[in-house]
Amino acid sequence: MAKSGEAVSPVISQIVDTARAVETKINGLKKPEMKFPLRNLSNVRYSAKKGHFEMLGKKKERTLAVSTVKSFAQTMRMIALSKQMIETDERASKRDAYYQTKAWGDAKCDEQPESDTILDDIEGLFGVNKEQLCFTPDEHGGLVAGELVVVDRAEIGSAATIDIDCTKFGSGAYSIPVSVEELQFETDAKFILVIETAGMFQRLVKHNYWKSANCILVSMGGVPTRACRRFIRRLSDEKKIPVYVFVDGDPYGISNIYRTLKVGSGNAAHLNEFFCVPEARFLGITPNDIVQYKLPTHPLKEVDVKRAKDALKTDPFFLHHKAWQDAINQLVTMGVRAEQQALAKHGLNYVIDTYLPEKLKHPERFLP
Amino acid sequence: MAKSGEAVSPVISQIVDTARAVETKINGLKKPEMKFPLRNLSNVRYSAKKGHFEMLGKKKERTLAVSTVKSFAQTMRMIALSKQMIETDERASKRDAYYQTKAWGDAKCDEQPESDTILDDIEGLFGVNKEQLCFTPDEHGGLVAGELVVVDRAEIGSAATIDIDCTKFGSGAYSIPVSVEELQFETDAKFILVIETAGMFQRLVKHNYWKSANCILVSMGGVPTRACRRFIRRLSDEKKIPVYVFVDGDPYGISNIYRTLKVGSGNAAHLNEFFCVPEARFLGITPNDIVQYKLPTHPLKEVDVKRAKDALKTDPFFLHHKAWQDAINQLVTMGVRAEQQALAKHGLNYVIDTYLPEKLKHPERFLP
Repeated sequence: MAKSGEAVSPVISQIVDTARAVETKINGLKKPEMKFPLRNLSNVRYSAKKGHFEMLGKKKERTLAVSTVKSFAQTMRMIALSKQMIETDERASKRDAYYQTKAWGDAKCDEQPESDTILDDIEGLFGVNKEQLCFTPDEHGGLVAGELVVVDRAEIGSAATIDIDCTKFGSGAYSIPVSVEELQFETDAKFILVIETAGMFQRLVKHNYWKSANCILVSMGGVPTRACRRFIRRLSDEKKIPVYVFVDGDPYGISNIYRTLKVGSGNAAHLNEFFCVPEARFLGITPNDIVQYKLPTHPLKEVDVKRAKDALKTDPFFLHHKAWQDAINQLVTMGVRAEQQALAKHGLNYVIDTYLPEKLKHPERFLP
Repeated sequence: MAKSGEAVSPVISQIVDTARAVETKINGLKKPEMKFPLRNLSNVRYSAKKGHFEMLGKKKERTLAVSTVKSFAQTMRMIALSKQMIETDERASKRDAYYQTKAWGDAKCDEQPESDTILDDIEGLFGVNKEQLCFTPDEHGGLVAGELVVVDRAEIGSAATIDIDCTKFGSGAYSIPVSVEELQFETDAKFILVIETAGMFQRLVKHNYWKSANCILVSMGGVPTRACRRFIRRLSDEKKIPVYVFVDGDPYGISNIYRTLKVGSGNAAHLNEFFCVPEARFLGITPNDIVQYKLPTHPLKEVDVKRAKDALKTDPFFLHHKAWQDAINQLVTMGVRAEQQALAKHGLNYVIDTYLPEKLKHPERFLP
């Protein structure tokens, strides 16, 4: 991780090397080129050992020519912006980066997808994540409450740190910042409980569930943002804490939310290495839970069934795990889905008094 | 505000009175009825004095009959659930409430809009907000950083309090809980800066802008949730602090975000009294800012123009303020919109070094 005041960061060296290579070619009256990894499912495989989708070696080449001169120039300027930000400990959101291009004359981007693509390319080019290049997402990163102290820098450019005690927020919570690379952690928690919905998170926070269970609660609020995934990953890696995931019992919760958290996604395989949580295990809601806890259900919609069948047919992660194939088949056969809040049928605090304690007795039964 | 251990709360008295009236009618072999205020624009007016949309007196009556027996029973059971929660200091999200109905036999709700409607009715019936009836929204309520200490209860059922210092979150932030009725505040801040986008909020937090400006930063993340609006309202009321709103310079930022924050919305007029922030003033981005700061713009879309024209034609708030009519007309004539992050064209920290200090010299020029 690059910090101001450090010796030249490896990313800076890479940037300088890339720029020199381009300069040398141009000075030698040759056409400079840059090579970017291909970003799609044809270029990934599932590594069970590493625990995430991995890139294969396919690359696309961008050579300076009349047709590529604009994107070539944009890439060079964006790399320069990154270098400048690393050196000054500055950050730009993807939207900020787009507006910065407005001052680039002919090389300006007309719409944000143009500048976003350049950022994706650079990320792949250097094999680092955008946050390390000092670009941040525009969205926030999830909420945290429980047995955790986050150690952050007191302010920009300062070496002083600040302790953020996540047991001290009452009914509120700590909001994860968009860049988490510099955070440090102190905790004796037994596990991290990662929760899909704000409603369920709020219930567990309100009752200080983290205290009785000695755990850390994280609210994803739907599909987890990059910052949220990276936060959980760094926390679980550095503190060797298991990660249990508690989402809705439907194909979206299983394949979009859980799968993305655990092994990453197909269209961003160049950064799964940083943003996946290979240690994550699926606590519930499982298809078995729906039967065993007599949960109220909704019928699977057509889009749910399609999502489930796609997972069984093309997703390397589910193809690797027989237990998941059985579970997804069971869900499709039952033809229903159940939300985590469906436990409220048995009483508002059934989830705290009965469901979670029963499940947590047998983490070895959690789906992989 | 109802707390466990207190003398009977006014809401409990209202609930008991309502239930008694129904019981008496039934015992006398008469048909019980309940009266709910109508919830739409035909039943509101803009009160410049009170600063929000107000309900007129139109009501709908629900009399127990064959056709209304189910909704009548659901209303009674939901009121009973509310009473029980107030007495036990419990909370249910709207989704929880829906699932609770699944245990009500024939009175169960098939879809959540059914139970949501009942909650809206009860809220109108008693003239209080859902949070006072112990129902909470499912979404979170915005983020806070800066010169503010929030005093919350340490845990459920406890009288002990906990101080949450919003200057101590590093690059993170305090997440507002879904129910804010019991929070207390300590602050010497000069103003509250309410921000539309997470990206802009993060920039100001990252640079500890709240320290140099002596202010409180609140991120709405789009249209503010009820909890976010109520939080700002209570904070500004109790501490007599001005509220400055910093949103995108487009019809959505002006009429959906700012107008909703300041005076409330038409379809929920029975609760604007609680959820509006009459003190709010519009810092920017104004149509003038677009010209003066030479901001990069996007053309207004058809939907933008329609939104602007609707505001000028039918919205009692904009009809009341000539300054707003002029500003909206100027925007439509220019045919463009500009986002708050567009300031990044002039440098990532232009907003901190130039734009905000210049604007804050003249709060008297802020739009009403």
